[in-house]
Amino acid sequence: MINKPVAVIAGLGSGTGTGAAAARLFAKEGYAIALIARGADSLKALSDEITSAGGTAAPFTISSYSTADINSAFAQLHAHYQGQPIRVALYNAAHGVWKPFLDVTPDDIQAVTQTNIEGAFTFSKNIIQAFQKNSLDEKGKRGSLIFTGATASVRGNVTTSAFSAGKHALRALSQSLAKEFGKQNIHVSHAIIDGGILTNRTREYRNDPEWEKNEDVRLSPDGIAESYLYLVRQPRSTWTWELDLRPAHEKW
Amino acid sequence: MINKPVAVIAGLGSGTGTGAAAARLFAKEGYAIALIARGADSLKALSDEITSAGGTAAPFTISSYSTADINSAFAQLHAHYQGQPIRVALYNAAHGVWKPFLDVTPDDIQAVTQTNIEGAFTFSKNIIQAFQKNSLDEKGKRGSLIFTGATASVRGNVTTSAFSAGKHALRALSQSLAKEFGKQNIHVSHAIIDGGILTNRTREYRNDPEWEKNEDVRLSPDGIAESYLYLVRQPRSTWTWELDLRPAHEKW
Amino acid sequence: MINKPVAVIAGLGSGTGTGAAAARLFAKEGYAIALIARGADSLKALSDEITSAGGTAAPFTISSYSTADINSAFAQLHAHYQGQPIRVALYNAAHGVWKPFLDVTPDDIQAVTQTNIEGAFTFSKNIIQAFQKNSLDEKGKRGSLIFTGATASVRGNVTTSAFSAGKHALRALSQSLAKEFGKQNIHVSHAIIDGGILTNRTREYRNDPEWEKNEDVRLSPDGIAESYLYLVRQPRSTWTWELDLRPAHEKW
Amino acid sequence: MINKPVAVIAGLGSGTGTGAAAARLFAKEGYAIALIARGADSLKALSDEITSAGGTAAPFTISSYSTADINSAFAQLHAHYQGQPIRVALYNAAHGVWKPFLDVTPDDIQAVTQTNIEGAFTFSKNIIQAFQKNSLDEKGKRGSLIFTGATASVRGNVTTSAFSAGKHALRALSQSLAKEFGKQNIHVSHAIIDGGILTNRTREYRNDPEWEKNEDVRLSPDGIAESYLYLVRQPRSTWTWELDLRPAHEKW
Repeated sequence: MINKPVAVIAGLGSGTGTGAAAARLFAKEGYAIALIARGADSLKALSDEITSAGGTAAPFTISSYSTADINSAFAQLHAHYQGQPIRVALYNAAHGVWKPFLDVTPDDIQAVTQTNIEGAFTFSKNIIQAFQKNSLDEKGKRGSLIFTGATASVRGNVTTSAFSAGKHALRALSQSLAKEFGKQNIHVSHAIIDGGILTNRTREYRNDPEWEKNEDVRLSPDGIAESYLYLVRQPRSTWTWELDLRPAHEKW
Repeated sequence: MINKPVAVIAGLGSGTGTGAAAARLFAKEGYAIALIARGADSLKALSDEITSAGGTAAPFTISSYSTADINSAFAQLHAHYQGQPIRVALYNAAHGVWKPFLDVTPDDIQAVTQTNIEGAFTFSKNIIQAFQKNSLDEKGKRGSLIFTGATASVRGNVTTSAFSAGKHALRALSQSLAKEFGKQNIHVSHAIIDGGILTNRTREYRNDPEWEKNEDVRLSPDGIAESYLYLVRQPRSTWTWELDLRPAHEKW
Repeated sequence: MINKPVAVIAGLGSGTGTGAAAARLFAKEGYAIALIARGADSLKALSDEITSAGGTAAPFTISSYSTADINSAFAQLHAHYQGQPIRVALYNAAHGVWKPFLDVTPDDIQAVTQTNIEGAFTFSKNIIQAFQKNSLDEKGKRGSLIFTGATASVRGNVTTSAFSAGKHALRALSQSLAKEFGKQNIHVSHAIIDGGILTNRTREYRNDPEWEKNEDVRLSPDGIAESYLYLVRQPRSTWTWELDLRPAHEKW
Repeated sequence: MINKPVAVIAGLGSGTGTGAAAARLFAKEGYAIALIARGADSLKALSDEITSAGGTAAPFTISSYSTADINSAFAQLHAHYQGQPIRVALYNAAHGVWKPFLDVTPDDIQAVTQTNIEGAFTFSKNIIQAFQKNSLDEKGKRGSLIFTGATASVRGNVTTSAFSAGKHALRALSQSLAKEFGKQNIHVSHAIIDGGILTNRTREYRNDPEWEKNEDVRLSPDGIAESYLYLVRQPRSTWTWELDLRPAHEKW
């Protein structure tokens, strides 16, 4: 029988970005990983990779970030990791829409809304309720819930009407949760990722080997994951709600 | 035949707040008023009141802020005010939810999302497309679109997870629109209303005649409406995207 | 004997910008103008211009924004406008420094500090004390104090270490005053001017007739002054602390 | 001969707060510590303590945060730690003033200004110039400069006109430096400390053993120091400019 705290990670994109890096890092740090995302293949691949490396992981595929789908994933998750406490949660789901406002479709809005509001609220509810059952750990914490944000979390711009609406909403949720549940020793954080992240998608899209090699100009998923681990380890007397993360040479 | 520029106002609440005050003021200033809201009765009452006072107004009742309902209201509006240019638009719709996070229901989230995202995007799309057909007015403007925000637009808090998520999203939309369409001489603004507004609802809810009488401690809808008129009149060289409004004695 | 409320304006630059436009507008609106600035010649020229146009104005030249110089100017001002209430004050003094950080000199820092902190605190103290003696006007106000800010008030950037330090400090002062003295019906505001203002200096510096003519791409001092007048006229139930002002086509 | 990178820490207060905790932690992590502060006694005591514990430290007493005094301290520091690279710098100096605006004296303003502007600019200039001489370390960094901020860095309030003016200015400086020198692989950060810190001063002032014992309600200097160490260790692809730090139960 496994006896590890569980880290739940929602949102994996191509399986080569922030969510995947966080999954690998927290697995190494002794957490059993629960992966919630669409894309059964990349989900299974990552889960297998972690298991092969001696870690513990399980995939919970969803077809959308609807309340029903998220709740169903958590039901499976609880059955799978029965009795093990959830101690860490990362909401990393995102739906990128960059287009002129008049080109934004009802589908874009629905997808942005479901990812950043419906799914985020449902995910958070499941996590908060799980954390509330925990005793305090050695850092004085019942659990850590982290949200991945973006520049669009704090600034609307000419092609980000839909994307920034969703990201602003997510940030507001994270702040409300931080204020409401800090008193219960539940730590909620929000990371503003400001810049391009090196993933398989951006590799393909940019096709720019210089950019890939140059760690000064793009974010590495591993660096972001390390920051999330730092947030999880902060002692109760000094908690961060929000930090920004960008490459050394980023213009901002 | 009427020959007036049209001011479209969405969101009237009890018919005694910001939206109604703006409708009355813009009617006095020579605009034909188009009222879009739920609550056919208060909508008709306000429309009749404006007409009786010598103004021009028409109600377009909706049953929700869904894309379909908003689009249908605009179709009726265009038929009614055929050939008259829409010059002013106020998105004043709000759905207040103040409760602990774990009490927030899927219905709350759906209502907040529909009001602040689905409805706001659809309203804005109709308005921007209408403004784009206008020539520049004497202020160098094709039209003014104003959003009513709140303290929750810039701050999440312990009972505002849902409300602030929606209001943050609305603010992001307004900033994106301001940046994208400023170049087309379309002026988009966002007002942060910080404090209690005197309406029939707050009168009943508070039942505090001292509070009602004391203009230092609560916002008056007429004062807010005057601010909106000021925004509409700003010349092209000095446009405001965002301003805050609060009573003199408000603690903040 | 003159019987007008007094508007005190500090900071006139070349005498063709925001301070001068505000002076002219408030003179037209029935205020006796008190001009506090360096540059005796442009100060006198503006004062004479207002007087010739039938207004009331008096220049109070200072050699610096030191506490002693500001206090001395107010002593003369009180003697000159004896018994007339100060109702409006604009702190428009600025010291522009745009250079790489390592080129910033102790003199730059001293000038920025004196303009934005020493002078601003001393000016504000004189104004607040004068306002406290006033009865409420018909808007429920003892007086309005407005600060001119800039983009650098809310954002540091690569060549604005000194300038933005000063402007951030000034903004903090304005917010503290707004919160402390709102309860005494003293209205304090801060305007974020985001973009280039058309003045004799920018005319010369840019030497770009297209830019001068195009009201969509630069701020006009008169537009800013109108905004200040709007702030002064806001009723007690709906006061603005902060607004931004930028040309329609500004990229931001 | 010592062969360690140098960490320069300015501002030690009573010698029991953030600066002292950072000094101890960075000494343990292998840095030679340079202490710049007023209060020769507590400076010497801390330096001796670190040395007795096997670390390396040297005190550089200043009588003020004037440009001359700071420059003189750096001249001594360079002579003392000849040839050893400065890799870390913490500007922790603060001058607390909490009083109604009309009670703020010219001396208060001078002290706040000197600490947050004159001293901070001079300290930063010395540090940036020292960092520029460094090669990249294994994290891809020439050096880390951290500023200690406060809630007053982002919000003015009724008793913080002077304090928040200074703290806002310091934050603006830190942002300007982060943007200008990131491109040179110099990492500049700003920490918003939101809440009471447990120091000898707050122990005495509060005289509240419950507060002292309860890590949920007050910041510990050691926790803050650990956050600073985390910032120093961030890899070049994921740098934080700003984070907030507060106790789990803080109301905000």
